[in-house]
Amino acid sequence: MKTNSVCRAFAPASVSNVACGFDVLGFAIEKPGDEVVAIRSPNQGVELSKIDGDQGRLPREVERNTAGVAAQALLDAAGSREGVALSLHKGMPLSSGLGSSAASGVAAAYAVDRLLGLGASQEELLRCVMVGEKVACGSAHPDNAAPSLYGGWVLIRPADPPEIIPLPIPDGLCCAVVRPHIEVETRASRTLLGDAVPLRAAVVQWGNLGGLVAGLFRNDLELISRSLVDVIAEPRRAGQIPGFARVKQAALDSGALGCSLSGSGPSIFALCASRQAAETVADVMVGALAEEELTSDRLVSAVGCEGVRVLPNSPAK
Amino acid sequence: MKTNSVCRAFAPASVSNVACGFDVLGFAIEKPGDEVVAIRSPNQGVELSKIDGDQGRLPREVERNTAGVAAQALLDAAGSREGVALSLHKGMPLSSGLGSSAASGVAAAYAVDRLLGLGASQEELLRCVMVGEKVACGSAHPDNAAPSLYGGWVLIRPADPPEIIPLPIPDGLCCAVVRPHIEVETRASRTLLGDAVPLRAAVVQWGNLGGLVAGLFRNDLELISRSLVDVIAEPRRAGQIPGFARVKQAALDSGALGCSLSGSGPSIFALCASRQAAETVADVMVGALAEEELTSDRLVSAVGCEGVRVLPNSPAK
Repeated sequence: MKTNSVCRAFAPASVSNVACGFDVLGFAIEKPGDEVVAIRSPNQGVELSKIDGDQGRLPREVERNTAGVAAQALLDAAGSREGVALSLHKGMPLSSGLGSSAASGVAAAYAVDRLLGLGASQEELLRCVMVGEKVACGSAHPDNAAPSLYGGWVLIRPADPPEIIPLPIPDGLCCAVVRPHIEVETRASRTLLGDAVPLRAAVVQWGNLGGLVAGLFRNDLELISRSLVDVIAEPRRAGQIPGFARVKQAALDSGALGCSLSGSGPSIFALCASRQAAETVADVMVGALAEEELTSDRLVSAVGCEGVRVLPNSPAK
Repeated sequence: MKTNSVCRAFAPASVSNVACGFDVLGFAIEKPGDEVVAIRSPNQGVELSKIDGDQGRLPREVERNTAGVAAQALLDAAGSREGVALSLHKGMPLSSGLGSSAASGVAAAYAVDRLLGLGASQEELLRCVMVGEKVACGSAHPDNAAPSLYGGWVLIRPADPPEIIPLPIPDGLCCAVVRPHIEVETRASRTLLGDAVPLRAAVVQWGNLGGLVAGLFRNDLELISRSLVDVIAEPRRAGQIPGFARVKQAALDSGALGCSLSGSGPSIFALCASRQAAETVADVMVGALAEEELTSDRLVSAVGCEGVRVLPNSPAK
């Protein structure tokens, strides 16, 4: 397989959980995302030569950094004695609920794989990224890593290894995402859920998850809309975000098909039938947060975009 | 609407839960099923003139009998002051895990609707049957009533009213069902489940339910097979059936796509890719039960058959 001396990869952000799909659904968005430039190094193993865009907050030690861990896991799995130096450019805020750590890990593993011509399968890359996710989040759920890697909208069937099932996406489906300028730590957010859920609520969620999957296959926006209800995580986590109920109601009143937390928040997503509808909904959500005296930023994206990819190498630095 | 002086309806048995779809999945089978003959009566309201096939075990009082309650609920909903007399012929054993009470209620409501030309919608009929199910089972889950009424394989999205979502079925898909000659009471079986489920198990079930729905839409028997796993109800209920693990293993070893309890048992179903495969699997399952010194009977059916229907009136009795 062809090898290079430098490889630059981009992995997109992703929306996970998607209302009724706690830990089993996620889709890639257009941007933002993280970039990793991998170059050959004379020193065996992975080194992190540069990280920017993180305001100095990410760990610089390879074994504590999700990108470093994912890349090292890939070298280990391949039995490679090569050396690589990684530059990580964070293109999105940390702890935003958009799969920031997963995007870093995906970009790093992919860049190293392509740099060295290791030819790892997507399953193998995912496994390596999950090693990094465990370091970053304390638990390993591929609902961000899988869409960031594979692209599209995926269902994850928990198994060992997890099975990634691509779902069809209705033409034109877009999402509005607003990120209030507060932080929610994924680990802390997970403890809010507890270890058990009421059987009645689990049944409702099974029905909605099934309804959403059926709605996607049928291209039935109304069924999708009715099914975009989270009775498990959202009720327990929404209190972390001032004004969540107001934002959600505003989105639905403005024509969103559904609205819930992106991952564990604080970002809030709304699915919409068109880009134009999503633009309107995004504005309305930003306005609703402003009424809570929360500043925020917004984005609009198609749902289920391309996953990780190699970018043209930037000019020599 | 045309009215008649007699109407005879047949409602089929059904397999509910279907491994990963606790309370949200069910499909109709060819037979057995229950028949109800409804005739006009001079006395206002519903009377139960005859019940056979139940070894005298079902309540004869209208207000305690699932067929009587469903029929009366329909008259009440229609504001009808007519009188009907029902003859119920149980075509299947009670407490078999095949939706016996639901089939009686569906046949009764449908027969009365057609007898009197009430023109009730399927949603309205289902609502009336659920009133009867609540009397029979202590709780109202339409995972048997809906397939018995609508036919096919349905997903139930819990809502008020529940939404019934038909699912596509791969050509040739058949089931083997064996009924060990023991009884399991639905109410008691439900208490085994408790009120809460571990979050981890719920997530696995969400993934499998989504995988099964996706597999049905994709006509992907391997995905269907991998997804036919129940980590919620089966582990808690299987102990009620001696040798369940042996029967299941024998079915899977003989080529079944999946095998689990039908409803709350004691019947055990196995999905198979063809009728021939289902015949083989049914024999193997009966044999495995025999090794536990349990007698049983067996049936083989297509999956997702026709729902309730009017039969030609039998000769005058």
